[in-house]
Amino acid sequence: MILINGIEEDKIAVTDRGLTYGDGVFRTLAARGGKPLCWRLHYAKLRGDCERLGIPAPGENILLDEIASVAQDMTECVIKIIVTRGQGTRGYTLPLPAQPTRIVIRSPLPNYPAENTDKGIKARICELRLADQPRLAGVKHLNRLENVLARAEWNDSRIAEGLLLDQHGNIIEGVMSNLFILRSGVLLTPDLSRCGVAGATRERILAWADQTGIPAKIQDIPLNTLWDAEEVMVCNSLIGVWQIREIDKSGKIWERGTLTPSIREYLAKY
Amino acid sequence: MILINGIEEDKIAVTDRGLTYGDGVFRTLAARGGKPLCWRLHYAKLRGDCERLGIPAPGENILLDEIASVAQDMTECVIKIIVTRGQGTRGYTLPLPAQPTRIVIRSPLPNYPAENTDKGIKARICELRLADQPRLAGVKHLNRLENVLARAEWNDSRIAEGLLLDQHGNIIEGVMSNLFILRSGVLLTPDLSRCGVAGATRERILAWADQTGIPAKIQDIPLNTLWDAEEVMVCNSLIGVWQIREIDKSGKIWERGTLTPSIREYLAKY
Repeated sequence: MILINGIEEDKIAVTDRGLTYGDGVFRTLAARGGKPLCWRLHYAKLRGDCERLGIPAPGENILLDEIASVAQDMTECVIKIIVTRGQGTRGYTLPLPAQPTRIVIRSPLPNYPAENTDKGIKARICELRLADQPRLAGVKHLNRLENVLARAEWNDSRIAEGLLLDQHGNIIEGVMSNLFILRSGVLLTPDLSRCGVAGATRERILAWADQTGIPAKIQDIPLNTLWDAEEVMVCNSLIGVWQIREIDKSGKIWERGTLTPSIREYLAKY
Repeated sequence: MILINGIEEDKIAVTDRGLTYGDGVFRTLAARGGKPLCWRLHYAKLRGDCERLGIPAPGENILLDEIASVAQDMTECVIKIIVTRGQGTRGYTLPLPAQPTRIVIRSPLPNYPAENTDKGIKARICELRLADQPRLAGVKHLNRLENVLARAEWNDSRIAEGLLLDQHGNIIEGVMSNLFILRSGVLLTPDLSRCGVAGATRERILAWADQTGIPAKIQDIPLNTLWDAEEVMVCNSLIGVWQIREIDKSGKIWERGTLTPSIREYLAKY
């Protein structure tokens, strides 16, 4: 089920700048019984991302109503919210005033293998390197060709995620996830001020570390650092957290760690 | 008038990857009496760009028929062709086989001031710096947020174009155009192997220089080089070529040049 500006519909105008320029932002989150999980965080991020692009953010209550409306009869489902700058005429000039397009999409929960959660996953290092663009870094915008090209690098279904490096050789994130590594007892997650998407679950894990007293740092993480890590994991709002147990073609294998289950337990409490 | 996969319609599915990821390419060209101008070049570029993203390109005759159909009753018009990877399910994994979405849009010719052509334009240097992404460089893809943010930097209608630099300080292009400079009698245009869009008119001007015996070079052009240029111009399929006579806030002014009119005369012959 899809609502576009509150109306049940599954198509948008070809002239919407979301299509012509990727001029918009999105969020993907889980909902239970018609209620979005971690809503305050997701809404804050949506609003912040809209602000970064200069797109007026939809009101919180409008979105909550629309999510309730599409998700009410589902025990659990995925909600995707897309906000574009709306229709434009030909050319890059901003339409003033912008009349943003607000899209709320309900989908079934993804069907990931249970063992990704229970045992951990095999990941790979992608060849595509993320470009440095501080003006867009961190924002979950609709310009996602880098992720598309990176995901197209493999079709071995035993590989659950690809890790993306920047042009300097730092690990930044997974194709669909954020990354944490435990190294010398410190929880590290990549600095996303030049590229990457700053997801909601990453924020939650940083908050958990803070509460729990586990030292955590946001910093550049050169690929070398990965090999020395005690535990490596990827996270997002749908998968929660998966431990990476193996990196394809590297020979590197990690034993099952104890941090991933602790974080998972925390993430499960909303 | 808009055709989507050959059918007259003005909306596309919200699940089209052109919207969700900007996963597609486009071209903008002029048509006269139902015939696209410089079609061989535009089609070759469309096909090449599709190939770069791994999207099956639409057949040439299908597109020609559709362009004729939308443009037949127009003396002159603009044709925009968009090709996306088509609909997908949630997630970055490529739909296999892809069923691309083919969009042909007819619009009126843009209404630029005649003096842009007759006298030249004032341009500005944009603050936004283009990111280096060799995997996407040159391709006219739908991830155009950099252009959107750059165009949003000014709303003074006397400024007709913004020039974009890369992260190293080289001039790459205009927001909606490619750039040429004449310096020490050599026609230079920026190297687009790390960022930028390689437009059809740029190719035509390079071909013209080759035919005419004017020495031309594709190379990095540091901003400094601009100030010493004898003549500076921007081009695309709709504007043809405009001389840049002034750079905003720089104090730099150029006299009317002789190269721009020669190039314009060549471009007008199809």
